[in-house]
Amino acid sequence: MSVKQEAAKLNTGMRNTVPLVHNITNYVTVNDCANALLAIGASPIMADDMLEAADITAISSALVINIGTLNQRTIESMILAGKRANELGIPVVFDPVGAGASKLRNETTQRILEQVEISILRGNLSEVSYVAGLSASTKGVDTSEEDSDKDALAVAKTAAEKLSCTVAVTGAVDVVSDGARAVRIFNGHPMLSKITGTGCMASAVTGGYAGMKQDAFTAAAAGVMSMGIAGEIAYEKAGHMGTGSFRVALMDALSMLNEQMIEEMGKIEEAKH
Amino acid sequence: MSVKQEAAKLNTGMRNTVPLVHNITNYVTVNDCANALLAIGASPIMADDMLEAADITAISSALVINIGTLNQRTIESMILAGKRANELGIPVVFDPVGAGASKLRNETTQRILEQVEISILRGNLSEVSYVAGLSASTKGVDTSEEDSDKDALAVAKTAAEKLSCTVAVTGAVDVVSDGARAVRIFNGHPMLSKITGTGCMASAVTGGYAGMKQDAFTAAAAGVMSMGIAGEIAYEKAGHMGTGSFRVALMDALSMLNEQMIEEMGKIEEAKH
Amino acid sequence: MSVKQEAAKLNTGMRNTVPLVHNITNYVTVNDCANALLAIGASPIMADDMLEAADITAISSALVINIGTLNQRTIESMILAGKRANELGIPVVFDPVGAGASKLRNETTQRILEQVEISILRGNLSEVSYVAGLSASTKGVDTSEEDSDKDALAVAKTAAEKLSCTVAVTGAVDVVSDGARAVRIFNGHPMLSKITGTGCMASAVTGGYAGMKQDAFTAAAAGVMSMGIAGEIAYEKAGHMGTGSFRVALMDALSMLNEQMIEEMGKIEEAKH
Repeated sequence: MSVKQEAAKLNTGMRNTVPLVHNITNYVTVNDCANALLAIGASPIMADDMLEAADITAISSALVINIGTLNQRTIESMILAGKRANELGIPVVFDPVGAGASKLRNETTQRILEQVEISILRGNLSEVSYVAGLSASTKGVDTSEEDSDKDALAVAKTAAEKLSCTVAVTGAVDVVSDGARAVRIFNGHPMLSKITGTGCMASAVTGGYAGMKQDAFTAAAAGVMSMGIAGEIAYEKAGHMGTGSFRVALMDALSMLNEQMIEEMGKIEEAKH
Repeated sequence: MSVKQEAAKLNTGMRNTVPLVHNITNYVTVNDCANALLAIGASPIMADDMLEAADITAISSALVINIGTLNQRTIESMILAGKRANELGIPVVFDPVGAGASKLRNETTQRILEQVEISILRGNLSEVSYVAGLSASTKGVDTSEEDSDKDALAVAKTAAEKLSCTVAVTGAVDVVSDGARAVRIFNGHPMLSKITGTGCMASAVTGGYAGMKQDAFTAAAAGVMSMGIAGEIAYEKAGHMGTGSFRVALMDALSMLNEQMIEEMGKIEEAKH
Repeated sequence: MSVKQEAAKLNTGMRNTVPLVHNITNYVTVNDCANALLAIGASPIMADDMLEAADITAISSALVINIGTLNQRTIESMILAGKRANELGIPVVFDPVGAGASKLRNETTQRILEQVEISILRGNLSEVSYVAGLSASTKGVDTSEEDSDKDALAVAKTAAEKLSCTVAVTGAVDVVSDGARAVRIFNGHPMLSKITGTGCMASAVTGGYAGMKQDAFTAAAAGVMSMGIAGEIAYEKAGHMGTGSFRVALMDALSMLNEQMIEEMGKIEEAKH
C-alpha cells in the first residue's frame, strides 16, 4: 500500500476511533487547533498546568507541544507531559514555533529535545533549520518561505537523523522524512500563509493521526496532506472573498475530508535523499 | 406564565438591559464566549488576575466560572471572584469542564463548591455526574454522550439537591432541575458537539440570563434553550457546508434570536423527578 | 498630500514591506488581532514571557500593548518590551482596555505611561478619558459610547498633550489628535460594537501602520480609517445575516482593502481644536 493509501485509510480510522489529543499550545491559535481536531475526526483537550498536564497526557492518544506563546509556567508542563508520554508510549508531536527568534525559544527547544523523545517534528524551513542546527534566523511565526524544496529535503533529513524522529517541513512544497524514507507533498495553497494558525493546525491534525498508532512517518504525511488538500478546496471555494471566508472554508473542508478525497486529491511522491 | 414564556421574555429583557457578565474561563473558547454574550444581548468582560477578579465581579451582573484550562493562578481568582459575587448577591454560573479527568480539576471543583455558593451548574452528563459524586469518568471535554435523558434527569436532581442550586445537564436532550422543578429541552443538534465551545457558550449565555436576576431555574432553561434553538437554525442553514460555516451560522442565529422565536421554536416540557 | 492620501499610500507600503508587529495582548481577541494584521499586510508575533518579550520587540517594527486580560506576569513583560522599544526607536501603540474598571488596570496604565513612551494611544471615550484624568467610569470593555464627538475631540487633545503622543478615540465618530493636528473620521458602523475585538483589532492594525515609520498621526488615522471602512463593507455584505457572518466579512474586507479603496471610501476631515 502506498503512503497515500495508508494516509487515506488513517483518516477513516481516526473518524471511527476519535482519538483524544492533548495540546499544550499557544493562545493565539488554540481555538483553531481544537476545531481542526474535531473537524478531522479527533477529540481535543487542552491543559497546561503542571499539576495536571501529565495526568491529561496519560488519558490521551497523542500529545502536541507547541511553543508559539510559551511561558515559564507552561514550559515546565510541556516537559512533564512529554516525559509521561514517553513513559506510556504515547506519540509526541513538537511544533517549535518561532525557534531561532529568541533565547527563550531556543533554550526551550533544546530542553524539550533533550528531555522528551519526539515522534514528529513539524515546522517551517526556518524553524526546522534552527532545530537541526543549520541556521538560526526567523522572521516572525507566520513567515512564508520560498526556499527551494531541495533545501527542505536536506534539512528534514538532517533533523530526522539528528533527533531520530520523523520531520515534516511545511512550505510551498511540504517534505516529510524519517531519515530513511522521504516524500514531497505538493498540496496546499499560498493563501494558507495569509491566515494565522495553519501551521499549528497542521501539527494538531498530525497529532490526531499519530494518535492512531500508525507509524509516525505515515501520520505526518497524512497530517500535512490533509491540511494541504483542505487549503486547496478552501481556496477554490472562498479564496476570492478574502481571508475571513477562506478560514471558514478551510475548517469546512477539514470537516468534509475523507479517505476517497485524500486518494483522489493527494499529490505525494517519494523523494530520494 | 410557562417556563418557555418566561425564558422568551427574558431574552427581550436582556437585550434591553445589556447585563455585564464577568467570565473567568478557558483560553480555547473565550472568544466564542465573548461573541456569544454580545450576540445574545449581554456584554462580556474577561479578567482573571487575583488582583482584579473580585473588583470586576463587583461591577458585573453575573459571574461565569469555567475550568476548561484552569491553572494555579486563575484558580485563586475564581475563588476570590466567587466569594465577592456571593457577598453582593451576584449569581454564579459554574461550568466544571473536564471534571473527573484530572486530580487538579477534581480538587478545584471541590474547592469551588465548598467556598462559593453556585447559582447554576452547567455541564455534560459525565461532568455533572462527577460533581454529584455519582461517577468519575470523563473522556475529554468535547465528548458527546448518548446516555439516556432519564439518567440526566436523575443526575441533575441529585446534583441540584446536593449543591442547593439549579443544574443544567446538556446532551442529546437537555435537562434543567433545581431539585423541586425539572424540565427537558429537546432543542439542539448533534453537530453542536462537532465544534468546540458550544458547552462553554451555553454557560456564558446562561450567565447573561442569570444576570437579569430572574430565578436561576428560568435563566438556565433560557440559556440552554437559546443555544439549542440557535444550533437548529445553524444546522438548517449551514450544516451541509461543514463545521466552519456551522460555527458562523451558530453565532448569526444567537444574534438574531428573539422572544418570538423562542416562543415558537422552544421545545421544553416539564419533567417528573 | 492630504492625511487620507498619505494613509492610503501607507496601506500599499505596508503590503509591500510586511512589517513584523509584536503584540502583548489579551487572550480574548488575540486570534482576531493576528488575522487582522495578516489581512492588512503586516506579520504578527505574540510573545508575553518576560524572558523573551524584549527580544521579540527588538526584531519587530512596532509593539502593541493591550491590557484587556492583563495579569501580574504579563504586566512586567509589557514594561520590559516597552522600554526596549523606546531604546530602539520602535513605535509603541497602547490600548488601555477597560482603564477605569479596576485598581489593577488603573495602576498598570499609570505604570506603563510613566515607564514607557507611547507613540499612539487608542481607546474608547471612557478609557481615554480615564487616561487623560478626566473621568473614571467604565462599563465593561465592549461599551459603545454615544457621547458627542466634541467631547471626544477635547479628550483626545487633552490626552495627546498630557502624554505627548498621538491619541485615537474611537466611537460613533472617531477622532485622532496629536495635540496640534486633529481629524474626525466618519467611517465605521454600529455593528462593529456587536462583536468582540474590533477595538483591539484597530489597535493592532494601527501597530502595522506605525511599523512603517510614517509619523504616528498618519498611522493612527490609517488604522482607524481602515477598520471603519472594513466595517462598512462588512455590514453592507453580511450585516443582515448576523454577527457571525459580519465578523467573517470584516476580515474579508480588511484583507481586500487597498490604497484606492481608502482614497474613495475614507471620510476624514480636519478638526479644529
